[in-house]
Amino acid sequence: MPTAEILTIGNELLIGRIVNTNSTWLCRKLTYLGIKVRRVIVLPDEEEEIARGVRESITRGVDILLITGGLGPTFDDKTSQSLSLALKRPWVVNQRALRMIEKKYKERGLEMTEHRLKMAKMPEGAEPIPNPVGTAPGILIRFGKTLLIVLPGVPEEMKNMFEQYVEPLLKKVAPGVVFLEDQFVCRGLPESTIAPIIEKVMRKVHAVYIKSHPSGCELGKPVVIIHMYTSGYRREEAEDKLVQVKDELKRELIRAGAEIENS
Amino acid sequence: MPTAEILTIGNELLIGRIVNTNSTWLCRKLTYLGIKVRRVIVLPDEEEEIARGVRESITRGVDILLITGGLGPTFDDKTSQSLSLALKRPWVVNQRALRMIEKKYKERGLEMTEHRLKMAKMPEGAEPIPNPVGTAPGILIRFGKTLLIVLPGVPEEMKNMFEQYVEPLLKKVAPGVVFLEDQFVCRGLPESTIAPIIEKVMRKVHAVYIKSHPSGCELGKPVVIIHMYTSGYRREEAEDKLVQVKDELKRELIRAGAEIENS
Repeated sequence: MPTAEILTIGNELLIGRIVNTNSTWLCRKLTYLGIKVRRVIVLPDEEEEIARGVRESITRGVDILLITGGLGPTFDDKTSQSLSLALKRPWVVNQRALRMIEKKYKERGLEMTEHRLKMAKMPEGAEPIPNPVGTAPGILIRFGKTLLIVLPGVPEEMKNMFEQYVEPLLKKVAPGVVFLEDQFVCRGLPESTIAPIIEKVMRKVHAVYIKSHPSGCELGKPVVIIHMYTSGYRREEAEDKLVQVKDELKRELIRAGAEIENS
Repeated sequence: MPTAEILTIGNELLIGRIVNTNSTWLCRKLTYLGIKVRRVIVLPDEEEEIARGVRESITRGVDILLITGGLGPTFDDKTSQSLSLALKRPWVVNQRALRMIEKKYKERGLEMTEHRLKMAKMPEGAEPIPNPVGTAPGILIRFGKTLLIVLPGVPEEMKNMFEQYVEPLLKKVAPGVVFLEDQFVCRGLPESTIAPIIEKVMRKVHAVYIKSHPSGCELGKPVVIIHMYTSGYRREEAEDKLVQVKDELKRELIRAGAEIENS
């Protein structure tokens, strides 16, 4: 399975002003494309720190490095120049990006300014990704085995660009891998009683990952959500495995005194 | 200002099953304590990867490394042993942690098992943090200049333990630094027009960080949220700065044709 890391850039995330829903949305998308997300990293709006983060991800050898945020016109939008720094490639005006941006401002009767031109600057050799919602184009660039994809941080722009331009591209990278998941609620057993049961079932059925999520107590009884997932090249085989695991788990948990409820 | 990094552990985050609200909550808490969060990192439930993440954070020289998740009784709760691996300290039964856990299960009439005992194992020299909500104790350990704090991933347990035990501790590390913020809504100007105005005001008033957040369009007019924050040892001074920045910004934006609305 191809691997990915996600870098989300922005002080607003590090001061806890906003929840990082972008990364969750992207994790979901990549997972369902059959791409394994190995890390999510939030970085501040600082050139050196972003460059360092990019270099570290490349060094870890990921296939896809997805970066969001920091592409706008303000002084603290530093992702593009940080990328140049990290990849040691000159930061230049990309002519295709420039045309995209000029067209946008022309339509609104606005002149090009230094701050608007900035959004057309990219590491040499990059390919701009059109932005149908906002102004700043995304950036696509290959570096060794890693494909770097940079999208804006504004969720509507990011999602639109991902679905229109990035998803079709990634489908070629991870062809035909399906991801399947299921869950149910287990009542009446503490997680420490469930633990050895999960281990037993996981030893029996390979390649299905089972995880218990404690979810408080109801009427004095512990409530634990049991989540299962698997991926593979054949949908039917994966489905069968998931059903088998679910049945086995339920049987064992009921035997141990649990009440089961589908969620 | 003391610095921090937050590591949140769990495959459920990397497959996009849940939103990382724990890290946002902690970022908020640390920021208001006057601690600068430099990075948030999400890691999978893998011993080598967690240990690597811990070592990397320590190498970056943070004062506080806050880790959540992976402390429970299941096979994939691996944070504690990963910490031992990262710090090269033996993974041993902590007698204080053991007593905390034994007491919990005794109250519920449950025996100690291998999986329950696991939650009492910690790197040598660690101090357990009581868990008033769940079972697994947290872990406190100093390594060189870095204070490592590990809390469970279940939000109710994490928040309770942070407020009861960790927050009083951190107040001593970052005494008396206040964090202040404010925001307003700017309508009618694209972000690229706002950008040079923000730069001008930031050059005039030092140590206040201003960031624009595009928030779509209303009736064809761009809506941008302007967020300002600052921190310092004197509350009044910080308050004055923030008011000054807000007034200056509003005046300049109105002059450029914006409508302003407090949010």
